[in-house]
Amino acid sequence: MPRDPRYDILFEPVKIGPVTTKNRFYQVPHCNGMGRLHPDSMVAMRGMKAEGGWGIVSTEQCDFHPTADTTSYCETKLWDDTDIPYLAGMCNEVHKHGGLAAVELVHNGHDTGNLYSREVPIGPMDRPVTWLNHPVQARAMDREDIRAYRRWHRDAALRARKAGFDIVVVYAGHDGTMPSHFLARRHNQRTDEYGGSLENRVRLYRELLEDTLDAVGDTMGVVARFAVDEMMGPDGLEWEGEGRDAIEMMAEIPHMWDVNVADWDNDSMTSRFAPEGYQEEYVAFVKQVTSKPVSTVGRYTSPDAMVSAIKRGIVDLIGAARPSIADPFLPKKVEEGRIEDIRECIGCNICAAWNNVSAPSRCTQNPTFGEEWRKSWHPEQIAPKEFRIACAGGRCRAGRS
Amino acid sequence: MPRDPRYDILFEPVKIGPVTTKNRFYQVPHCNGMGRLHPDSMVAMRGMKAEGGWGIVSTEQCDFHPTADTTSYCETKLWDDTDIPYLAGMCNEVHKHGGLAAVELVHNGHDTGNLYSREVPIGPMDRPVTWLNHPVQARAMDREDIRAYRRWHRDAALRARKAGFDIVVVYAGHDGTMPSHFLARRHNQRTDEYGGSLENRVRLYRELLEDTLDAVGDTMGVVARFAVDEMMGPDGLEWEGEGRDAIEMMAEIPHMWDVNVADWDNDSMTSRFAPEGYQEEYVAFVKQVTSKPVSTVGRYTSPDAMVSAIKRGIVDLIGAARPSIADPFLPKKVEEGRIEDIRECIGCNICAAWNNVSAPSRCTQNPTFGEEWRKSWHPEQIAPKEFRIACAGGRCRAGRS
Repeated sequence: MPRDPRYDILFEPVKIGPVTTKNRFYQVPHCNGMGRLHPDSMVAMRGMKAEGGWGIVSTEQCDFHPTADTTSYCETKLWDDTDIPYLAGMCNEVHKHGGLAAVELVHNGHDTGNLYSREVPIGPMDRPVTWLNHPVQARAMDREDIRAYRRWHRDAALRARKAGFDIVVVYAGHDGTMPSHFLARRHNQRTDEYGGSLENRVRLYRELLEDTLDAVGDTMGVVARFAVDEMMGPDGLEWEGEGRDAIEMMAEIPHMWDVNVADWDNDSMTSRFAPEGYQEEYVAFVKQVTSKPVSTVGRYTSPDAMVSAIKRGIVDLIGAARPSIADPFLPKKVEEGRIEDIRECIGCNICAAWNNVSAPSRCTQNPTFGEEWRKSWHPEQIAPKEFRIACAGGRCRAGRS
Repeated sequence: MPRDPRYDILFEPVKIGPVTTKNRFYQVPHCNGMGRLHPDSMVAMRGMKAEGGWGIVSTEQCDFHPTADTTSYCETKLWDDTDIPYLAGMCNEVHKHGGLAAVELVHNGHDTGNLYSREVPIGPMDRPVTWLNHPVQARAMDREDIRAYRRWHRDAALRARKAGFDIVVVYAGHDGTMPSHFLARRHNQRTDEYGGSLENRVRLYRELLEDTLDAVGDTMGVVARFAVDEMMGPDGLEWEGEGRDAIEMMAEIPHMWDVNVADWDNDSMTSRFAPEGYQEEYVAFVKQVTSKPVSTVGRYTSPDAMVSAIKRGIVDLIGAARPSIADPFLPKKVEEGRIEDIRECIGCNICAAWNNVSAPSRCTQNPTFGEEWRKSWHPEQIAPKEFRIACAGGRCRAGRS
């Protein structure tokens, strides 16, 4: 069946700085519990999304330095050149299907206990680390630390280019990254040029964007992933206040804005409490203050809702994490006029639950998720029931007994 | 300084079936958060203990089948032949220093949620899994499952021999292994020949011991690691009741008995609440009912206490987990008459705390623990203070800046 012409707009290319995505389907960064620990599983899982038609396929958060070691979470890592090959494997898989590969560089600052690296955690302030109550103290960064941190980020962007990525996502969101820690008044009571006024508190993020553009912006898209509202009223960023002000201050700096709400539980609400597109009211202002392409998320699974969000001038690209897990072939099904075949994400968050206990994510709607490599499972090609699983090398295959 | 002759007895060889340990220092299996995830770290850490003089150096618990997948804990694994090389690496390091290498084979039964393998957990009864409240249900094993389980254990013992191990530890302890689940009335309400009477409830463990002896007992020592008391009164095994009866039923089957108390928090009490050798009262009966060598643990760090335990006929070997972490060179220091140099374990259990959050263990008394490979640290050769850490390939080295 041919594509319904009213969905044509979803398949228009969009320019993101020096690169162009073939359509408006953007698989935003999302964790998956595979990361550096199960690289073959991660590569095959990302490749499946590219095969399913996503124009941009991103890593999860990719840690770039031992001072932000997220052990025991299974994240992607880009600590040094030895991490390049497996990420290059992901880029190859994505490129094979005409997608752009994006990497989200992350330093989790005072969130991390550095249980493996044993380095002293760093952040805007002296304080205990925030994840899992590890008995570890983070140290306030001085100017030299900030210079070093910017250099690590820049080096990671250069490594990402070597790995074959097309896009670098510079990440200030979910109350969990160094620039978001600097942004939040409650985390940042510094008295130097990185604390105090909003201009000072966004300084670090602006520098990261500029550093990244300077390092790789000639050949790679530089995307700002930024939480405009923390849904905690005046205690946090608000889209009608500093959230908007911050975007306005940096409006034309990145090649694209990927905007959402924080913290994670607000950004990934269950379907019971939040309808499709529920973040639109928070992010609608962004396209009014920038000429760059804008994306958001909101568990979009209906192509009509996607088209509507674009036509109403809310976004240029449709971001998706969970819908791309439940149905890696969502874009292809829209393209082929098979809307009824879309497996809709039900927002149950079992994907996140598994990741949060440091195990490979699974999906209640797509049992093949996470098994693309290990069991050679494909979400659109379901083999008849078999009776025996043979395992070797940590990899299992079904076969007749 | 020469060895004090009163410690000579600690350096007598002991025969364990077909193998002989050079002395009575037995590093019992202990977790460490490195396992299959950080194999180089694990190999170097075990090698350091052999260098320090331990006659037997053991793995932590070594999972042998995907139906008992301990994700997200970092355990040693022997699921198939692809797991042999890194374990062979450990055996080589241990042999290099004249030690015997032991592997503790484990299937954690209904404890495990199988978050990576996604296999259905199995155990004596239908019930939810017990670790970390994962929303996963374990299935009661039928006779075919039990036969399969015995075959997996046997296959793992054969693989262990291929890897170069000298000893297989068959493990029923800490309320956490399949045979200990079958042993406990509270876990086992079966009505077949594996439930009911004590004879029936020990059947599986007896079969494992016999299977292992049959498979590898001609060339490898087969050690029974068995908890004789669960410190929960009549609700669990008691050394004056079924704990003793079980040992009597199997007294001459294994080549050696390694006996302790359960659960883990009883077996690894802090120094604040338990003196050195505190398990002696629970295990003293064992040597009275078997002719085989016997070992126990109890945070022994004083060679006088060790000699006393041997001379009083409590044990033949001194088991140690935490003391071997705090001082890998404990045996060598006794041998060389350097008693004052022993770094005593203070029983703080930080080693376990790190392991329990799935991170490499550390030690408050021995900062080199876990860093033998990554930073090339040695507990007895402390380099002068350096100022710069250079990292590559996940491995860091100190150097002058």
